[in-house]
Amino acid sequence: MNASHKSLDGNLPVIGLTMGDPAGIGPELCLTLLRDEEVFTRCRPVIFGDTKLLQRIATTCGTPLAPPGEGDVVEVACADMETIVPGRISAAGGRAAYRCVEAATREALAKRIAAIVTAPLNKESLHLAGVPFPGHTEMLADLTGTRRYCMMLASDKIVTSLVTTHTALSQVPAGLSVERILEVIRLTHAAMSRLRPGRPRLTVCALNPHAGENGLFGAEEETLILPAILQARQEGLQIEGPLPPDTAFLPDRLARTDATICMYHDQGLIPFKMLAFDVGVNVTLGLPIVRTSPDHGTAFDLAWTGRAHASSMREAILLAARLCR
Amino acid sequence: MNASHKSLDGNLPVIGLTMGDPAGIGPELCLTLLRDEEVFTRCRPVIFGDTKLLQRIATTCGTPLAPPGEGDVVEVACADMETIVPGRISAAGGRAAYRCVEAATREALAKRIAAIVTAPLNKESLHLAGVPFPGHTEMLADLTGTRRYCMMLASDKIVTSLVTTHTALSQVPAGLSVERILEVIRLTHAAMSRLRPGRPRLTVCALNPHAGENGLFGAEEETLILPAILQARQEGLQIEGPLPPDTAFLPDRLARTDATICMYHDQGLIPFKMLAFDVGVNVTLGLPIVRTSPDHGTAFDLAWTGRAHASSMREAILLAARLCR
Repeated sequence: MNASHKSLDGNLPVIGLTMGDPAGIGPELCLTLLRDEEVFTRCRPVIFGDTKLLQRIATTCGTPLAPPGEGDVVEVACADMETIVPGRISAAGGRAAYRCVEAATREALAKRIAAIVTAPLNKESLHLAGVPFPGHTEMLADLTGTRRYCMMLASDKIVTSLVTTHTALSQVPAGLSVERILEVIRLTHAAMSRLRPGRPRLTVCALNPHAGENGLFGAEEETLILPAILQARQEGLQIEGPLPPDTAFLPDRLARTDATICMYHDQGLIPFKMLAFDVGVNVTLGLPIVRTSPDHGTAFDLAWTGRAHASSMREAILLAARLCR
Repeated sequence: MNASHKSLDGNLPVIGLTMGDPAGIGPELCLTLLRDEEVFTRCRPVIFGDTKLLQRIATTCGTPLAPPGEGDVVEVACADMETIVPGRISAAGGRAAYRCVEAATREALAKRIAAIVTAPLNKESLHLAGVPFPGHTEMLADLTGTRRYCMMLASDKIVTSLVTTHTALSQVPAGLSVERILEVIRLTHAAMSRLRPGRPRLTVCALNPHAGENGLFGAEEETLILPAILQARQEGLQIEGPLPPDTAFLPDRLARTDATICMYHDQGLIPFKMLAFDVGVNVTLGLPIVRTSPDHGTAFDLAWTGRAHASSMREAILLAARLCR
């Protein structure tokens, strides 16, 4: 389980792709992108997965997927891979997905790979395997001992980062604080400083309709969001807001900002998916390692058919390569 | 104050345009659309406003706006109109805006006009005038004695109606009930039945991210939204949901639905403004009269210049005409 030899191959960063749930589209996306021309000009991908399973999927897929060659796979011992059926939830699948993330994270922490890109996993399989995390983000925070992190969704057209994420709407107001909003602002500023030239221009969304209409529909703009913005400005950040959420995503506004900080999941995800479906990349900010992932799930209905679109996973790899610079 | 003579002019519906705040872009939009070719093929518009003020604005505007002729205006006595300055908040402006809505509503209730289209008013002017409503919708509900109503935003690309509207985000969950969701579903179904051929196809958004992920992030989908949907289905409505909000507005989904019922303001307004900015129409459902309005404000910075876009107000008039059928 050592990928360091790959980095000898030029100065390109070695990026670990975790195969994700073996019953989903993750393994075939990894195989497709292993030979992708654009990916190959920016980095050296290596799959963290079970070689036999990958070979089986390469054979099963209708499209001509080359089976992995020497150095393409960091072998992760996964039990019961012969029982995996495409599209079927299983403890073996959940366990394998977790093991691959665990192995890749260890290699990344040891700086033997430069970044990890995680193919989708299935929450129910994970649950069956007794893995106590709702998804990758929480798993990675645990594996790396990280407490301050946030999710950012990135694309050429729109970038949003989230102050609260997988939270019931009724719990969103309680999840906001000046410190948390400031934390997400700082993490977003740091990431955008690496991704785009010049000083990043940030926009912060309000929580309430019409940005609270001067306190008529909620006070969080005055008590939490504005203080965080003023503090960020004192730190030298270029930042505007709080903006009424329904005008924050109009073309004029998006053209004048590098990233939009959103208070809750759907405030960021509704506009993001409308503008960047199929090409969106999920980035976890705040981890000691670079980690990205595609913005879609396991697509069990397409698994092992070779028909899944690799565009979002490709973008995730390319973005990870840029974040390694 | 009688517009009934206009309806002799063919069988087209007479539609009352309230001039809105006199210091805003409302009066000039009304004047522009009074002579609009497309409007004129579908209805007979008549302005509820102060004739002298309208003549003054027609003269002031750079573009050649014809002053109103005989039968174009239902005179509404408004005090202190000579003190009105474009772009300036005033009690006189707020009072005038209210008086025009009041007069047009009375005519509509008496069936002397077929519908009303309200040009934008200014909340601060209204407040200075001592008019105790935050906006048109609440004012119209009061003037018509209506308790069950909702706001719908309509365009060719997207239609959304709102279960809660001008509510702080923290108060949204408390504003939901099976009865209220069902009410908005029924009102939306009735409106769409008039606007589009065939049985309307409705979609209902979830409240929580991922539609609550089986109760993991909130239970309102199970306890409130699904029961309302099941009841609506029992009543013969064609309806789907609750859908994860972040995929409810993707092109595939919008193509398969006539209207989307949203739980809160920005859930509906973010996608609506992204897809239908400048052409959106606001409709109040549930009133005993037909009422629409453009989806923008008084635009004080453009007032009396003749440069304001009339597209949204035009769409509002055309939609009102369709709702009169």
